[in-house]
Amino acid sequence: MFFASDNWAGAHPAINERLLRESTRFAAAYGTSDLDRAVEARFNEIFEREVSVFFVATGTAANSLALASVARPGGVVFCHSEAHVIEDECGAPDFFSGMRMVPVEGPLGKMNMKNLGARIARYPQDAVHHGRAAAITMTQATEVGSVYTLDEIAAIAQTARAHGLPLHMDGARFANALVALDTTPAEMTWKRGVDILSFGGTKNGCWCAEAIVFFNPEMARELPFIRKRTAQLFSKSRFIAAQFEAYLKDGLWLELATHANAMADRLRDGISGSNSARLAWPTQSNEVFAIVPIDTMKKAHEKGAKFYDWLEPRDMSEPAGEGEMLIRLVTSFASTAHDVDAFLAAIG
Amino acid sequence: MFFASDNWAGAHPAINERLLRESTRFAAAYGTSDLDRAVEARFNEIFEREVSVFFVATGTAANSLALASVARPGGVVFCHSEAHVIEDECGAPDFFSGMRMVPVEGPLGKMNMKNLGARIARYPQDAVHHGRAAAITMTQATEVGSVYTLDEIAAIAQTARAHGLPLHMDGARFANALVALDTTPAEMTWKRGVDILSFGGTKNGCWCAEAIVFFNPEMARELPFIRKRTAQLFSKSRFIAAQFEAYLKDGLWLELATHANAMADRLRDGISGSNSARLAWPTQSNEVFAIVPIDTMKKAHEKGAKFYDWLEPRDMSEPAGEGEMLIRLVTSFASTAHDVDAFLAAIG
Amino acid sequence: MFFASDNWAGAHPAINERLLRESTRFAAAYGTSDLDRAVEARFNEIFEREVSVFFVATGTAANSLALASVARPGGVVFCHSEAHVIEDECGAPDFFSGMRMVPVEGPLGKMNMKNLGARIARYPQDAVHHGRAAAITMTQATEVGSVYTLDEIAAIAQTARAHGLPLHMDGARFANALVALDTTPAEMTWKRGVDILSFGGTKNGCWCAEAIVFFNPEMARELPFIRKRTAQLFSKSRFIAAQFEAYLKDGLWLELATHANAMADRLRDGISGSNSARLAWPTQSNEVFAIVPIDTMKKAHEKGAKFYDWLEPRDMSEPAGEGEMLIRLVTSFASTAHDVDAFLAAIG
Amino acid sequence: MFFASDNWAGAHPAINERLLRESTRFAAAYGTSDLDRAVEARFNEIFEREVSVFFVATGTAANSLALASVARPGGVVFCHSEAHVIEDECGAPDFFSGMRMVPVEGPLGKMNMKNLGARIARYPQDAVHHGRAAAITMTQATEVGSVYTLDEIAAIAQTARAHGLPLHMDGARFANALVALDTTPAEMTWKRGVDILSFGGTKNGCWCAEAIVFFNPEMARELPFIRKRTAQLFSKSRFIAAQFEAYLKDGLWLELATHANAMADRLRDGISGSNSARLAWPTQSNEVFAIVPIDTMKKAHEKGAKFYDWLEPRDMSEPAGEGEMLIRLVTSFASTAHDVDAFLAAIG
Repeated sequence: MFFASDNWAGAHPAINERLLRESTRFAAAYGTSDLDRAVEARFNEIFEREVSVFFVATGTAANSLALASVARPGGVVFCHSEAHVIEDECGAPDFFSGMRMVPVEGPLGKMNMKNLGARIARYPQDAVHHGRAAAITMTQATEVGSVYTLDEIAAIAQTARAHGLPLHMDGARFANALVALDTTPAEMTWKRGVDILSFGGTKNGCWCAEAIVFFNPEMARELPFIRKRTAQLFSKSRFIAAQFEAYLKDGLWLELATHANAMADRLRDGISGSNSARLAWPTQSNEVFAIVPIDTMKKAHEKGAKFYDWLEPRDMSEPAGEGEMLIRLVTSFASTAHDVDAFLAAIG
Repeated sequence: MFFASDNWAGAHPAINERLLRESTRFAAAYGTSDLDRAVEARFNEIFEREVSVFFVATGTAANSLALASVARPGGVVFCHSEAHVIEDECGAPDFFSGMRMVPVEGPLGKMNMKNLGARIARYPQDAVHHGRAAAITMTQATEVGSVYTLDEIAAIAQTARAHGLPLHMDGARFANALVALDTTPAEMTWKRGVDILSFGGTKNGCWCAEAIVFFNPEMARELPFIRKRTAQLFSKSRFIAAQFEAYLKDGLWLELATHANAMADRLRDGISGSNSARLAWPTQSNEVFAIVPIDTMKKAHEKGAKFYDWLEPRDMSEPAGEGEMLIRLVTSFASTAHDVDAFLAAIG
Repeated sequence: MFFASDNWAGAHPAINERLLRESTRFAAAYGTSDLDRAVEARFNEIFEREVSVFFVATGTAANSLALASVARPGGVVFCHSEAHVIEDECGAPDFFSGMRMVPVEGPLGKMNMKNLGARIARYPQDAVHHGRAAAITMTQATEVGSVYTLDEIAAIAQTARAHGLPLHMDGARFANALVALDTTPAEMTWKRGVDILSFGGTKNGCWCAEAIVFFNPEMARELPFIRKRTAQLFSKSRFIAAQFEAYLKDGLWLELATHANAMADRLRDGISGSNSARLAWPTQSNEVFAIVPIDTMKKAHEKGAKFYDWLEPRDMSEPAGEGEMLIRLVTSFASTAHDVDAFLAAIG
Repeated sequence: MFFASDNWAGAHPAINERLLRESTRFAAAYGTSDLDRAVEARFNEIFEREVSVFFVATGTAANSLALASVARPGGVVFCHSEAHVIEDECGAPDFFSGMRMVPVEGPLGKMNMKNLGARIARYPQDAVHHGRAAAITMTQATEVGSVYTLDEIAAIAQTARAHGLPLHMDGARFANALVALDTTPAEMTWKRGVDILSFGGTKNGCWCAEAIVFFNPEMARELPFIRKRTAQLFSKSRFIAAQFEAYLKDGLWLELATHANAMADRLRDGISGSNSARLAWPTQSNEVFAIVPIDTMKKAHEKGAKFYDWLEPRDMSEPAGEGEMLIRLVTSFASTAHDVDAFLAAIG
C-alpha cells in the first residue's frame, strides 16, 4: 500500500533490461555516444519536430536549468503559488537562474489568468526597482493532480507571447497529464506555445531519467555550458539515454502512465463510494486527494499504508472539519489493484 | 582497445545485479530509505570511523559541494595547476562555493610544498583585497596518474592545519590510488589529515555513484541544504546506494581497481619495451602517459584504438620531439589483457 | 513643491562644510583612517554600546549585505509583503545573500504577528525541500510611513529569538521613526532585540551615507570580506565617515528628522481639513498618503508639484473610488512650510 | 610626504564647489535628473561618439559590472597576472560575472601577446569542460605604472576581435595614461578597439566618481538591471554626476593628471640621481617603483613618509639584493614639489 509518492516505486523491467545491455560495452562519455545521439533523435519523433534535448540528474535540475537558460538580470518568473519550483526545490531555481519566483494564485494548482496578468503588469520591462518579467513556468500535471486543458495551456502561452516571455512547463508528471488529456506530446507543448519542457521519466518507471527539451533551439544555446558548470553532465550519460530509449519504445511510457492513472481512478471511485472519506477535489491524473477522519488515517498507517498528509490550499472549497485531515495518495506504474483495494479496505 | 577514459567503460555485473534487485520494491525517496541508511553505515566500516556521507550525481558535484561546505566569502582554494577542479569542471567549484581556485605548480600533477606555502602566504586571513586562504584540495590519484605517498598527504595536511584550512581530496580514482599504495581507506585519508573526500565509484565499475565523505561532521552541517539547493538530491537515491552496496561488498571495488592498475602496468611494460614509443613518466595507477610518433598514433587510431592526446605539462622532463606526441591511455575494470596486447601490437 | 521622495533633496550645509574640510587633507584609504575609526566610535555612543559599523554605498547594499552576513544555504527571509527588500531592490538581497524573501501580509506596512508565525512554521530547520527560516527583516519607518511601536518591535524580536532567527531592521528612515516615537536609538533597536540595522543617512540630509550596524559582533565576522567582494568598500571611505560625523554631531540628524516629520504633519493637517482630498491612513513619520481626485492630481502636477501615485495595498480600509487616486507625499529636511502650503493651495 | 596611494588624496576644490552648488536644490533620484543626463552627454563629447555611461560606487564595481555585462556561462576572462581584477578585488569580478579570471604573464604589468594567444587557445568556444574564452581585460595605466602604447592596445584588440571577445579596459588611472601618451580619449579606447571602459575619477581628484563607459551600446543593454541588482545605483546619483561635470570641465582632469605625472617624474629624477636608491623600472605615469636599502626605507617612514613596499614581479630584471626592498610611490593631483623634495631628502 505505497501511495506516498510515485518516486517510491522502483524501475520497470524493460528499463532494467536495457540498462543491463548497455553496461557490457564501452562508449564515449559525457553525452557524446551514439546512443545519446539516437535517443536525442527519438525525442524529435516523439515531439514531431526538431528539439534540443539535455539529460540531467533530477527534476529540480531540469526546472532550474530550463529557467537558467532564459535568465535575465533582475528577472522574475511567474509560477503557481504551490508550484514545486517555489515550494519544494529549496530555492534551486533561484540559485541557478539568479531570478526570483513570484507566486500567482489560482484554484486547484492552476494559475488564474487574471491573477497572472496582474502580476506580470507589476513587473514591466523597464522596472529597474521592482525587477522585470522574464518567464512563466507552469506544471503539468499540477502539484495537486489537476491537469491544464489544451486551451488553458494556449491561453497562458498567449499571455507569455504578448509580454515577450518564454513559457516553461514542468513535466515531472508529463506522461500522466498526457494520457489524461488523451492528446499528443506535440499538442500539449509547442503546438500550444510551450518553449521549454522538463520531461520527467523518473516518477513513471525509470530510476533516474530527466531531460530538458527545448522547442526553441535558440534558448538552448548556453545550456551545454550551464549544464557542465552546474555539475549536471553525467560522464556515463548514455545510461540515462538507455533508460529513455526503453521508456519511449513502443509506447511503454504511455502504458505506464495509463496504468498509474487507472489506479488513481480506482482509488477515487473507492473513496467517493466510501462512508469514512471523501474526495477533496476531482482526480485528473495519478494523484488523489481525500479528506479522512484522523482516526481512520492512523488506522491505515498502522496497517502499513504509506501516504502523506497535505497542507490545505487557501482556496479549498470544502476544507477538512474537526477531527479530519487532508491526505494525498499517489499511484505509479508499480501500483496494483490489489494494493488499492487493500487500502480502501483499510480506511473502511 | 578503449583507453580514452575509464568513464567509457560500462558497469560491472555485480552492480547491475544489485540494481535489478532494488528495482522491484518500493522504498522511501530522497535518501531516507533503509538501504540509504545501511550504505551510509557501510562507509563507517570502510573508513573505520563515523563519517557523514552524501550521494551526488557527478564527480564535479562531489568536488564542488565539498568545497561549498567550507566556503567563506572572499575565500581562495589551493589546487594543483592541472587539477580537475580548475581545468575540467567549467568553473563549477567556483560557482557552487563562491570561491576562486588558485593554482599551485608542481611536477607530475602534485603540488610542490614550497609553492603551496608561498601561495598560502599571499592570502592571509585579513587580506580583504587579495582574498583569504580557505581550503586546500588535492587529487588522489592525480590527473596524470601519479599517486601522493602517505607522507606527502600528511605533509599537505600539516600545512593545511598550520593555516587553519580544511583539506579536501578529490578521489575520482580513489580506489586506484589505494591499491597502488597498498594501504587502507583510513590511512590514506583522515589518519593523514584529510577532512573531506570525493569518493568516486563511477570510473571504477558503477554507472553513476559518487559520494562526498566528511570525516569532520561539523563541516557537513549545511550539506543537506546545499545539496538540495544545487539539484543534487536524487528522488530515487537508493539506486545510488545500491550501486555502492555492491561496489563495497567483499572488496569488489579493490578487486576492480587492482585489475585496472594491472592492465596499466601491462601497457607500461609493453611501451617501455617498445621501439616506437616511450613512457612520458612513471605509471603509478591506471593511467599511462606515453610519447609516440604521430604516425604511430594515427595508425593506432585507424585500427580502432581509442585514446586522447594530452597537453604537455610545463615541467615535463623529456618533452615530445619533432613528429611526436604525448598521449594518455586509461585502463579500467573492463580493460582486458587482450585489448592491451592488441594496442601494443597496433603501435608496433 | 518636491514631495516625490526624500532622496530628491540635496545635502545639508553642515554636512557640506564637513566634506569640504575633509577634502583638503591626505588620509589612509579603504576605511582605515583616523576619521573612519572616530566615527565608528561615535556610533558606540549613539547606540550606548559597542557596535560594529560598516559604510556602504546605498540602502539596498546595506540591506543586502546585512542579510548576506547571516546567510544560510536554502534559507528564507521573512519580510512584509510591500517591503523595499522584496519589492524595490531588483532582487539584490536575494543575489547577495543567496536566500529568498518570503512575504508576510499585514495592514499599514507592518507584518501581522499571526501571519509571521504561520509563515515561519512553514519553514522548519530541517525542511530541506521547502527551505528553512533564516532571518526576519522589518522596516522602520515602513514603506507606507507607519512606525512599529517599541512593543511591536519587541514582539517580532521575541518570535525571532524563539525560532533562533536574527532580526534585521531596515532603517532607511530610522531617524524619522526615532523622533516619531520620541525614544533612543538603543531602545528602538538592540534593547528590543534587533541584531542588525541598516542605518540610513542619505534620505535625511547626507548625500551618500549608509551604514550597517551590528549589535551582535559575531554576525559581523565575515562582513569585511563580503563588503569588498561586493564592491562596496570605498577607497575614500572617510568621505562617508565625514558625512556621518556632521550628521550625528549635536543632534543634527534628529533635528532634521523632526523637521521633516513636522512638515508631514503640516501636510496631513492641510489634507484632513481639505474638501478635495482625504488621508488614506494616519501619518506617523515623513510620508503622507492621500486619496485625491485625478483631476486635482493633474492640476497639482501642472503647477509643478512633484509626487508619485501609489499602488493601493490589498488591505486598505477605504480605497480610492471612481475618479480618485492614491498618492504619496514625502517630506525631508529640505521641505519648507512655504512649499507645503503651496501644495495644499494647489490641490485646493 | 603622502605617496602610499593616489586614493589617500582628498578632493579638488573645483569639485567641492560643484558639489556644494548641487546640494542646495531638489532633483530627480536614481540617475534620472537633468544633471545626470547632461553629464552623460558630456561623455559623448569627451569620447567623440555616442556612449552609454553608468555611474557606480567603486572602481571594483566598475570592473565587475563591466565584465558582468558580457558574462557567459562557463566563461573565462583573460587579464594580466598582477591585474587589480585578479589580485586586489577579493573575487568581486568573479562574483558579479560568474566568470573566472585567467592570468596572462608579461613583463611590466602588460600581457605578453604570445602568452595571451596561448591562453585563449586553451579555451575554445566549445570547451565545455575547460570553459570558454569570454572577454579580455587590460589595465591602463597598469598596476606597475607602465602604459600600453596605442599600437599595443590595437594589437590586443585585434586578438580580441579575432576570437570574438569583447575588450575591457580598467581605467582607474585612465587620465594618467592619457596624458602620458599625449593622445585623446577616443584614440586610446574605441578607435583602437576597446569596447568597455572603467573610467575612474576618484584617484584623480574626485572623492567618489567612477563610471562604466560602453562604446558598444548593445553590451550595455542589461546594465541598468545589473547595476540595481548589485546595489550600485545611487539614489542621489546626481552627486556623482556633479563631480564628473567639474572634473571634465575645461580640461581639469587632464590638468590634474599632468600634475600627478610631473610629480612622479620629479621623484623619478631624484631617485635616479640618488646614491641610496635606484629605479626598479622606468616611470611612465604617476607611479614610481624604486629599490631602496631597508634602512633608508625605515628612516623615511620615521620622518613621516607614507608609501608601501611591493611584491616583486616574477620577471623583474634587477631584483632587490640583500638588505634592499622594492617600494611603490604614487603621486596625485594633491602632491606638491615640496613634498617630493622632502621625500628625496629623507632617503638621502
